[in-house]
Amino acid sequence: MSNHVTISEVGPRDGLQIEPTFLETAQKIALIDALSASGLRLIEAVSFAHPKVVPQMRDAEEIMAAIKRPAGVRFGAFIPNAKGAERALAARVDDLKVGASASDAFSSVNTNRTVEQGLASLQEIADLARGTGCEMVAVVGTAFGCPYSGPVPVENVVRIVDHYAKLGIKLTYFADTTGMASPREIHSVVEAVRARIPEMTLGLHLHNTRGLGLANAFAGLELGIRDFESSIGGLGGCPFAPRAVGNISTEDFAHMVLQMGYTIDPDIDALIRCAELVERSVGHAVPGMVMKAGKTTDLHPVKDAAVAAAR
Amino acid sequence: MSNHVTISEVGPRDGLQIEPTFLETAQKIALIDALSASGLRLIEAVSFAHPKVVPQMRDAEEIMAAIKRPAGVRFGAFIPNAKGAERALAARVDDLKVGASASDAFSSVNTNRTVEQGLASLQEIADLARGTGCEMVAVVGTAFGCPYSGPVPVENVVRIVDHYAKLGIKLTYFADTTGMASPREIHSVVEAVRARIPEMTLGLHLHNTRGLGLANAFAGLELGIRDFESSIGGLGGCPFAPRAVGNISTEDFAHMVLQMGYTIDPDIDALIRCAELVERSVGHAVPGMVMKAGKTTDLHPVKDAAVAAAR
Repeated sequence: MSNHVTISEVGPRDGLQIEPTFLETAQKIALIDALSASGLRLIEAVSFAHPKVVPQMRDAEEIMAAIKRPAGVRFGAFIPNAKGAERALAARVDDLKVGASASDAFSSVNTNRTVEQGLASLQEIADLARGTGCEMVAVVGTAFGCPYSGPVPVENVVRIVDHYAKLGIKLTYFADTTGMASPREIHSVVEAVRARIPEMTLGLHLHNTRGLGLANAFAGLELGIRDFESSIGGLGGCPFAPRAVGNISTEDFAHMVLQMGYTIDPDIDALIRCAELVERSVGHAVPGMVMKAGKTTDLHPVKDAAVAAAR
Repeated sequence: MSNHVTISEVGPRDGLQIEPTFLETAQKIALIDALSASGLRLIEAVSFAHPKVVPQMRDAEEIMAAIKRPAGVRFGAFIPNAKGAERALAARVDDLKVGASASDAFSSVNTNRTVEQGLASLQEIADLARGTGCEMVAVVGTAFGCPYSGPVPVENVVRIVDHYAKLGIKLTYFADTTGMASPREIHSVVEAVRARIPEMTLGLHLHNTRGLGLANAFAGLELGIRDFESSIGGLGGCPFAPRAVGNISTEDFAHMVLQMGYTIDPDIDALIRCAELVERSVGHAVPGMVMKAGKTTDLHPVKDAAVAAAR
């Protein structure tokens, strides 16, 4: 079992997409450049959704043209349809991130089509990508529960991953879209899919909505999962609850796995600085915790005790 | 292995002790009564520290005299010394909560005495408690790391627990006082102590300072730990970092273990109402997450999707 954990940073796309504050294009470019400079090797930079649907991502081409492209860093983009794939290929995206929801209710509400219709639309994207050097990387949304319909049968997840495998996709993240998983669901879904489609590499895209983000990540690590998506500073939120948080924080996750003896690509201090940049950029507190508490290895001089005692 | 998890609520003492807002005595009584009505069986209600040292706890006697005492609910108090034990016994406390830190640096700074001096002082408390029907329940502070001196040798924890066992103490919580543990440290400390002092029941008192509170709780559950301390709403904080959080939240922990198939004594909805009461009482947001996101089982009507999509 590898000791290396690969982090795919999704803040610039998935985090910002739900952020009410619209960032300037230059701010997004500065953030993405800081993220690639931190040592992260996978960055989901933009979405090629229609600008009317996701206005925060209206400047996707401009961003892709302006960001630094360091060797060894792959830049991904969320691709909702074939038109998006064409735009992404023209913008020299490395990874086409595609998705389907494991819940028909969620799929209907979010994309106005059934799960099967969504899956069928992926063939066109695969055809466009073939021979371009672009990889398709997939997500199964609401893999551990749907906020509308509740528990999701694991058979739904299996069917989607099977479809992905037939399209030649090698890596699929299971998304806990609204933070409904506990370690129990992580176990059952990962083990059921692995038993049926062992050739697929499985990753996790976790949310901390109910405080279980890193507990579920730990459950995944114990199952041998080594691919995780996370959002710098915990950027993003929950569409159903304004006070709730969304994605797990990249630097908090990185801090945990380093403490547990795993290796990662990015530098933890650089990630914390990126989280601070995100907080300044959006102009409000973000959920990241290590950026507020300091690293476990940041010891306090005993003179701090007077400050502590005074509280 | 039992499927039942026992939660010891420490918010009224450990949480409030660090809270800058002083609650009225009546507010504290109302909170403690709401907590006992929720079905919790163990509540750390007050501290018998000197009022000059912990002014938030100046009304400990008044609180103990006024709260409801439902059958089957044990009320604990933090006891820093023999004088505190005398006061607690006079106030008809059920559990005398005593502690020592596994770090000499932390012990010196926090209590102005060495670990050995602190342990020696427990004999007097044990002598006072003998024959009264009161139980001594112990905590090992900074069991997984010290904010001043860093890693704590597991031998320090073993030595303290051995001392506790010789005093007749049956239950010891290991406290991650400033949130420095990861599941790796939970494993190593719990397993080392169990191997040496198998007769002691071990519990965990976890903090969520760096986002790992419930990950560490899950690690403990996997090790067979069934006794946990937590704070309603995540009340409390971190003396070293004003923006950081402290204790894990009782209702978030309860929500997790219920979802994972464990049983608990309190009602989850009553706990969430207690967290809302705490938030109103202190007058600022508290860290609890389920109180903001709703339970996993609280499904959303599809019409909420319009709200979600508009964000």
